[in-house]
Amino acid sequence: MEFLPTEIIKRKRNGHELSEAEIDFMIQSYTQNSLPDYQMAAWLMAVYFQGLNKQETLFLTKSMIHSGVMVNFDLVPEFKVDKHSTGGVGDKTSLILGPIVAAAGVPVPMISGRGLGHTGGTLDKLESIPGFNTQLSLEQFIKNIQDHKICFIGQTKEICPADKKIYALRDVTSTVESIPLICASIMSKKLAEGIDGLVLDVKFGSGAFMKDLAKAEELARSLMAIAQGYGKKVTALLTNMNQPLGRFAGNSLEVFECLEILQGKTFIGKNGEDLYADTRELSLALSAHMLLLTGKYKDYSQAYDIAKEILNSGVAYKKFSELCRIHFASLEKFSIKSPALQIKAQSSGYISSFDTEKIGVALILLKAGRRTKEDILDLSSGIEFHVKIGDQIQQEEPIYTIYCEDKKLIAAAEELLLNSFKISLPKVTKEVLISKIIY
Amino acid sequence: MEFLPTEIIKRKRNGHELSEAEIDFMIQSYTQNSLPDYQMAAWLMAVYFQGLNKQETLFLTKSMIHSGVMVNFDLVPEFKVDKHSTGGVGDKTSLILGPIVAAAGVPVPMISGRGLGHTGGTLDKLESIPGFNTQLSLEQFIKNIQDHKICFIGQTKEICPADKKIYALRDVTSTVESIPLICASIMSKKLAEGIDGLVLDVKFGSGAFMKDLAKAEELARSLMAIAQGYGKKVTALLTNMNQPLGRFAGNSLEVFECLEILQGKTFIGKNGEDLYADTRELSLALSAHMLLLTGKYKDYSQAYDIAKEILNSGVAYKKFSELCRIHFASLEKFSIKSPALQIKAQSSGYISSFDTEKIGVALILLKAGRRTKEDILDLSSGIEFHVKIGDQIQQEEPIYTIYCEDKKLIAAAEELLLNSFKISLPKVTKEVLISKIIY
Repeated sequence: MEFLPTEIIKRKRNGHELSEAEIDFMIQSYTQNSLPDYQMAAWLMAVYFQGLNKQETLFLTKSMIHSGVMVNFDLVPEFKVDKHSTGGVGDKTSLILGPIVAAAGVPVPMISGRGLGHTGGTLDKLESIPGFNTQLSLEQFIKNIQDHKICFIGQTKEICPADKKIYALRDVTSTVESIPLICASIMSKKLAEGIDGLVLDVKFGSGAFMKDLAKAEELARSLMAIAQGYGKKVTALLTNMNQPLGRFAGNSLEVFECLEILQGKTFIGKNGEDLYADTRELSLALSAHMLLLTGKYKDYSQAYDIAKEILNSGVAYKKFSELCRIHFASLEKFSIKSPALQIKAQSSGYISSFDTEKIGVALILLKAGRRTKEDILDLSSGIEFHVKIGDQIQQEEPIYTIYCEDKKLIAAAEELLLNSFKISLPKVTKEVLISKIIY
Repeated sequence: MEFLPTEIIKRKRNGHELSEAEIDFMIQSYTQNSLPDYQMAAWLMAVYFQGLNKQETLFLTKSMIHSGVMVNFDLVPEFKVDKHSTGGVGDKTSLILGPIVAAAGVPVPMISGRGLGHTGGTLDKLESIPGFNTQLSLEQFIKNIQDHKICFIGQTKEICPADKKIYALRDVTSTVESIPLICASIMSKKLAEGIDGLVLDVKFGSGAFMKDLAKAEELARSLMAIAQGYGKKVTALLTNMNQPLGRFAGNSLEVFECLEILQGKTFIGKNGEDLYADTRELSLALSAHMLLLTGKYKDYSQAYDIAKEILNSGVAYKKFSELCRIHFASLEKFSIKSPALQIKAQSSGYISSFDTEKIGVALILLKAGRRTKEDILDLSSGIEFHVKIGDQIQQEEPIYTIYCEDKKLIAAAEELLLNSFKISLPKVTKEVLISKIIY
């Protein structure tokens, strides 16, 4: 069916609901280069203002999936599950929950992006392990899922080419911040993986795209509606990003933290608490919800106990080692660099808040994260977090440690980090990690 | 000063007021091809939704003027005046008021567009006179204004190149219908003419861009604010476009009507009324307001009497003949084609309304008007109007006569025209021609 692009732009501009055929016309003709950038740009801005309803967002997602191929999992008939996080500072749970769930016998086909913002994506983190190759073909990916239940690859050319092209255009036309466009972009890639269930980790707080719980819930429900519209099982956890997750942010540092946790280690901070606790806890909760979606477990409590047993027994660590092998990585050669600079408290009291977004900007300055796709990362740089909100601190005790080898970058990050936390005299309550679970 | 286009797009998208420097950056870098179409398209759509305030619209107009040259009228120091109409079916007053005002000794430098929609622009109408050359250089234009007080040319490459490029983009991105963008586009071209005063004929009604008086007044006031911001004198007339103006629409037919009026003729319709009355009356009113802006006349009544005397004495016709000479036209060779088909009333009663936009579409079908810049006109085709709203009509009396030589086009126009008027049994009031004058 042939449409006039100007009419479709005008209809959305005027707040009308677009048909499946109209949306598909825009997406397919843009992907095939018959719709020019400027008409797609005008349409995206009209969508920014007028939105897309649930139905239209589902049609958009569907059309983006159909712009490429879906992974064919005929060879892996079992229930396949994945997790998607909306991203935050120190968010590294994929590296722990992937091995846990796979070790429980549930296939976890993970197709990841290279992260924009805060820190690198899962692929960047894994590539800090010497030799780790994420550039496997779709055939190798399917074979690994069949044989090992787990594999991590990057988005290939065949998967959602429309999303790739549209995302690049949104980036240069200030049309990124649109819930339906964000949802379609995320979900098209995840659904093209050929999964049966998905657990969403939707972050809220000072380091998240959504600053408050209500907005995060709105985003979670929009994402869930698409998954459900596609007949997939889905659960969303609304989790706290008012402070970094875990002990480290930065690619190799995060892998180090994951290896420690997978090996059952703890790291006790100055207040007597384990600084790995939140990473471990969130990874276990997400693993349990992923297992629960398969329908093989009685309840959350049973699924959680199994996940915990797999982690504590070292079976998850064994699965991670296996993952490294199938990706041609030499885990024994993995190491982290030495710390460069400590940032200390200038007064005593209780840590009352972090400006987690500012910490994210510091990570970008340190080349631990990307601002644009072209930025080249230093996988060894990053930040160590010594305290959490609610912790008591004395003057001159460390808040952060910077890991980086470039003095100029360290100085720039230091300036930002010095203004990225607040210390109050009255005692402060600790943050709750998981605020809401939506089934 | 260097800006990030994405930041300017985002600021407008978020409803912020842009600075003169930011607006100028967008316009100049777009005109110089350093800003891509897709970023301008996204910005235009953001402007569509968030608008531009009076100040921003003035900055936009200024920037579009400065993208090219302003006509240098150092050689014509007198007060120069022009008229701009927002356009409607049968609107041909420029061809009458131009000669009247010029004959009164006031320079009228007219730079016109090729009309889109309804009927051709003033240039198309004039070109229906054999030999009429509107492609004069800016130098010839200035010389003619100096020697003859009148000259008509098309927009040259030197004048407002930004407007030309932006208008073409708006056309394909559904961003035409934005008051500030419309105002800046109109006013940049008019102000670049180097005029001192401007009379606006802002149409409202079924055949106008603005369907009601209030919207037309809003548009008029926006246009006036720009002219005043530029230190120009301006008057706006809000005039009726619920029915076609005068006896004819179509390029050569409109010239014929103007020649008749300039020669003092009348054309009495079946209700005993002169069917040239509204064209003549509006042309005289606009002429009088143009003269009044010069400050040389005591009041409107004096200016009107002078305009009327110039018309009735044949001096305006002489000026029109002179205009034809300086444009190399052979007025004696001018003729119109024979009528092709009459469209008759199917019942008796009073004409209660016209769907004037539908008449405009019929004119486009007959090739009397353009839908796109590429459409080629048949300057001889058009429509004759036998009745006005409020006229009594008997079954089988003619409403329209189609002038055209292509039977297929006639049939298509006939179908539209049959549904473009209503006849009611109760008596209907006549329309008022000029509803409001804003000084």
